[in-house]
Amino acid sequence: MNFASDNSAGVAPQILQSIAAASAGAAAAYGADDWSQRASQRLGEIFDTDIASYLVATGTAANALALSALARPWEAIFCHEESHVHDDECGAPEFFAGGAKLVGMAGYAGKITPDALKETLSRFPRGLVKSSQPAALTLSQVTEAGTVYGLDEIRALAAIAHGAGLSVHMDGARFANALVTLGCTPAEMTWKVGIDALSFGATKNGALACEAVIFFDKRKAEAFPYLRKRGGHTLSKGRLLGAQMTAYLQEGLWLDLAARANAAARRLFDGLVAAAGVRVAWPCQANEVFLITASERLKRWRAAGAVLHDWPTRAIAPEAAPQVDETLFRLVTSFETTDAEIDALLALARADR
Amino acid sequence: MNFASDNSAGVAPQILQSIAAASAGAAAAYGADDWSQRASQRLGEIFDTDIASYLVATGTAANALALSALARPWEAIFCHEESHVHDDECGAPEFFAGGAKLVGMAGYAGKITPDALKETLSRFPRGLVKSSQPAALTLSQVTEAGTVYGLDEIRALAAIAHGAGLSVHMDGARFANALVTLGCTPAEMTWKVGIDALSFGATKNGALACEAVIFFDKRKAEAFPYLRKRGGHTLSKGRLLGAQMTAYLQEGLWLDLAARANAAARRLFDGLVAAAGVRVAWPCQANEVFLITASERLKRWRAAGAVLHDWPTRAIAPEAAPQVDETLFRLVTSFETTDAEIDALLALARADR
Amino acid sequence: MNFASDNSAGVAPQILQSIAAASAGAAAAYGADDWSQRASQRLGEIFDTDIASYLVATGTAANALALSALARPWEAIFCHEESHVHDDECGAPEFFAGGAKLVGMAGYAGKITPDALKETLSRFPRGLVKSSQPAALTLSQVTEAGTVYGLDEIRALAAIAHGAGLSVHMDGARFANALVTLGCTPAEMTWKVGIDALSFGATKNGALACEAVIFFDKRKAEAFPYLRKRGGHTLSKGRLLGAQMTAYLQEGLWLDLAARANAAARRLFDGLVAAAGVRVAWPCQANEVFLITASERLKRWRAAGAVLHDWPTRAIAPEAAPQVDETLFRLVTSFETTDAEIDALLALARADR
Amino acid sequence: MNFASDNSAGVAPQILQSIAAASAGAAAAYGADDWSQRASQRLGEIFDTDIASYLVATGTAANALALSALARPWEAIFCHEESHVHDDECGAPEFFAGGAKLVGMAGYAGKITPDALKETLSRFPRGLVKSSQPAALTLSQVTEAGTVYGLDEIRALAAIAHGAGLSVHMDGARFANALVTLGCTPAEMTWKVGIDALSFGATKNGALACEAVIFFDKRKAEAFPYLRKRGGHTLSKGRLLGAQMTAYLQEGLWLDLAARANAAARRLFDGLVAAAGVRVAWPCQANEVFLITASERLKRWRAAGAVLHDWPTRAIAPEAAPQVDETLFRLVTSFETTDAEIDALLALARADR
Repeated sequence: MNFASDNSAGVAPQILQSIAAASAGAAAAYGADDWSQRASQRLGEIFDTDIASYLVATGTAANALALSALARPWEAIFCHEESHVHDDECGAPEFFAGGAKLVGMAGYAGKITPDALKETLSRFPRGLVKSSQPAALTLSQVTEAGTVYGLDEIRALAAIAHGAGLSVHMDGARFANALVTLGCTPAEMTWKVGIDALSFGATKNGALACEAVIFFDKRKAEAFPYLRKRGGHTLSKGRLLGAQMTAYLQEGLWLDLAARANAAARRLFDGLVAAAGVRVAWPCQANEVFLITASERLKRWRAAGAVLHDWPTRAIAPEAAPQVDETLFRLVTSFETTDAEIDALLALARADR
Repeated sequence: MNFASDNSAGVAPQILQSIAAASAGAAAAYGADDWSQRASQRLGEIFDTDIASYLVATGTAANALALSALARPWEAIFCHEESHVHDDECGAPEFFAGGAKLVGMAGYAGKITPDALKETLSRFPRGLVKSSQPAALTLSQVTEAGTVYGLDEIRALAAIAHGAGLSVHMDGARFANALVTLGCTPAEMTWKVGIDALSFGATKNGALACEAVIFFDKRKAEAFPYLRKRGGHTLSKGRLLGAQMTAYLQEGLWLDLAARANAAARRLFDGLVAAAGVRVAWPCQANEVFLITASERLKRWRAAGAVLHDWPTRAIAPEAAPQVDETLFRLVTSFETTDAEIDALLALARADR
Repeated sequence: MNFASDNSAGVAPQILQSIAAASAGAAAAYGADDWSQRASQRLGEIFDTDIASYLVATGTAANALALSALARPWEAIFCHEESHVHDDECGAPEFFAGGAKLVGMAGYAGKITPDALKETLSRFPRGLVKSSQPAALTLSQVTEAGTVYGLDEIRALAAIAHGAGLSVHMDGARFANALVTLGCTPAEMTWKVGIDALSFGATKNGALACEAVIFFDKRKAEAFPYLRKRGGHTLSKGRLLGAQMTAYLQEGLWLDLAARANAAARRLFDGLVAAAGVRVAWPCQANEVFLITASERLKRWRAAGAVLHDWPTRAIAPEAAPQVDETLFRLVTSFETTDAEIDALLALARADR
Repeated sequence: MNFASDNSAGVAPQILQSIAAASAGAAAAYGADDWSQRASQRLGEIFDTDIASYLVATGTAANALALSALARPWEAIFCHEESHVHDDECGAPEFFAGGAKLVGMAGYAGKITPDALKETLSRFPRGLVKSSQPAALTLSQVTEAGTVYGLDEIRALAAIAHGAGLSVHMDGARFANALVTLGCTPAEMTWKVGIDALSFGATKNGALACEAVIFFDKRKAEAFPYLRKRGGHTLSKGRLLGAQMTAYLQEGLWLDLAARANAAARRLFDGLVAAAGVRVAWPCQANEVFLITASERLKRWRAAGAVLHDWPTRAIAPEAAPQVDETLFRLVTSFETTDAEIDALLALARADR
């Protein structure tokens, strides 16, 4: 019953085999190898447009490097106040972007609203020298609350951002999970609705350590090779990344893995909500489940072997907030989550009231 | 006949198997997994002292992060003028150390001399506010010229550095190759001669993407977990690194791999020097061969399939420098280098005059 | 009727004379001159303790340098969300502190409350690697809303901060104005209630370009001379700063100037509030006046020659917020503000309804 | 007999009067005042072209800010190895340019030679990702050895730099002294020979704290207002800078002051060289004198009241280097240097053998 994180999950066998296949013999260093080239080409096909793409080993690197290509040191990056870039990367975006300012916005269920974005931008007038200049908006898709922006929501935010001269970045650490939920194409969820740059995650969805930074506006990628190298993120045996991404994208593996994780989350969510004494924190829209229950009960589940995290409650509607003796908790599923694990937790929940 | 770099070589089977073994099922994220813990413990045993160690995926990250733990933004880091940190990392050390100054020193065969170090330090008086304050010395072992510092040489440099209040870092991207050459223990080549922090490389010696940053003075490691995270170098599935390092250190694999690479370099060196028209640039002391021959001849070798790099000549004695029609070139061997490859190049050299 | 800012005011004659007196003939460079030494000594006397003090030419430099001495690049600095350091310095604190994160907190009338501070700190657990580590709290005295923290308020916030291992900085750009209001000693408003470092402003209060950074905990000042130099803030003819500060502190000039400015603000405030159709935004506690009136009316005042700024309303109580046709505006007085200017605006306000 | 530095000299009366005239009454803040506008216009006239100019209070700020506008964090700035930006600013250029690398080049008498520049640039190939990318060349005019580049020398270096895609910056801390020596126009010494950006110093030549950063290529100035603000270098009472620069440029004051300083240096140089036992280190071409004499003798001069600095000898021709018992020393003159001071030192030198 390990629902701690999709970071704790293992590696899909196809991806492991690809690493093995790529591991013997000489190959060009620093990403000039065939595997990396193939991954790059495949990403272009999948996104159905001309892109610049770069592989890195961590999501923090993908986000921080992407943002550093979009914002200069005296500029501002706008994000949800509980987003991963703002709260969970120990200041990596600020570091890579040379001290640029991250500006967090509140918003229900991890989502930035058009109103919040407009109001916030109004406090950063372009050309006002004392004010960090607005440079980029970053959205998380899936959000930190496990919710998924609809295409119209992304389009509306991107339009406001572009109208104010900002670039738009998507933190797609769980990109595949969101895509499966929306049932649209990668192009539709990105450049067709105004995304300029994307952190395209694979690690949480069955890879070992592999993310792509993708620029739909290639001019913004001009400095990226230097940024990546200077950040120590250009692997000398770049085939490690190329092999993972190639397998990940082959024959829809990435979508299969995400669909499996999403389905597991759905079963967990439905089953737990059906159990007495559990309330919904946010709707289940991808591979994460956010619920509220009695704190004492959670203690018992943990004692019985359930691994899960307490979660902050800032993005919740006030009327739905946990009471004093309640806790908001998160469960994350992955392609490896088994029915047995889910059933075990559901049984626990049903038995415990 | 690929002698371009040990970065182009593949992965030792034992290391690949270890990755595979670690890849299935749940494991704690961010380096709290068993593999990483075991690697850390094993490193402590091998260095025979109490250390703080951290795994990362690239040598640039290892060096830049280590130096950022030793030098503050207004301080200076002293290195050989042709060292990897100075010339080949696109400014990564300056980036991670917040704008600290790298001060390069000239020196024959890639080595810093005590006199050069003393003279250079005299230009950075402690307490002189206009002067970047001296903070760290970094040595490459193996050097950029393929040579190996003797233990007395390291001890002498470290003593000067410590006397001036500096920390001493070793860039051990080819640590195992140097160790095999010296035939000493890891402790003897590091903390026993004054090294405070070490980039312990595995990638060039049969791993896929794995280096350790090791602090012998653990107080200097206090901020390292934050530095690594903020640099995007804390892998979520940290087992990738732990599995590699564990296998690398098991039953002396790392030393076997290095011994193989060194022996291959020795055969190449001896064979080529015996051929007419080839001169020694620097002695062969590890797994790299630096020679000088007619530029025309190199062209023919390349046409025949030899892959090798031209090399800069700053660290050569003036009287030995290449003539106008000559080129200094580098050959690098790895654990994968075959006798057949070596024989092919030697045959080429003997046939071509 | 120029109430735009105390930055627009001129220079007190005594300070100008001091600059003139210091300007002829040779003097030691870089702050080693007699004037700077005297200023430093005088600051120590006024704060009645052993301090380390450094003069700089701007308030932004004072704040950003002070904070960079208290927080490391991967750490977090806590401030009011509308504070000058957060909103009006184009990211200077982030720049000087190497990308440290500024964390803004909401709070009525520009003040941080103990509850807000505790709640915010709870989201930055010490030792949690993914989280920017808490390093410093910075308070503005006078606040951005023209209010003044009472000694007990400062003491309470500093106690929470110290309890969590943070240093406490005070942005005292209008230090003298607050001191005159509280009628306490400089020591009582700073180190006796827990302030570790202070930006001690003189520019807004009659100097030309002079601020002091003062460390009550001298160990935190260790790197300051290098930080200041590297920031380009060590004046070669440091006597410019020393001469201003010496005159500023002589025979209570600084307190006289502030008392004059505060009295002018009080007259403005009382007179305007007495006029029909003007509401109080925040109480007048120093040399700033924040009021709300009909937007049309402000337009007419401006047409008649009044110079004043519209002001953001985030720190206002919701029930007191401006209506759609109203504007919150700020008036700032200085030692130069004349009764005639005040009377002219009051006449305007009385005549206009 | 204070020949320590032109930083130790006082302020020209006309400049002090201008500060006084600007000091009373209200004026627009942050450089929008009339004095600053006038200074800006006057600079344009003097340089006889359309420029963007910005005033700051220190030479370090001028240099570091200018370079940060020309080089991005992963790029390299080329300079003489003993230049002020490299050796005497505690890493300010690295700080402001976000960790960009300063690359020093050796060169006789403080001058960079075309050959050294070409050779150095050849080691920083454009597009080679591992290499800091070449961005800017910075020349000191007057150099650190007191020498002055001829127009042809500047033109030749700028042509090489531009050919390699670099911008060219001039550190003109002693711009007026060089200009007087060359007897050319400001335009001829700058943009007409390829200078793109200039630190135009006034402080060392009779101002109190005033330098201008001038961009001849105005597109490179786009971000400067933000860079300056973020660096804490935008004075709130900007009139302090505007008033100094206006007076400095009025009726040729700046050239008169420099001519006086240069003439004083010439008298000192000629007189000392005529004395027995004094050798020339570098020719006297502006307001600095570099000579070599017996160390014992210097001790006696100092005992008799002469204030002067020992100086490093790296930029000297080997055959001219000081012997073991000799010292290279520097004397600096200013507009305030009196004939009496000069005569006193000359008398000392003549009497002492």
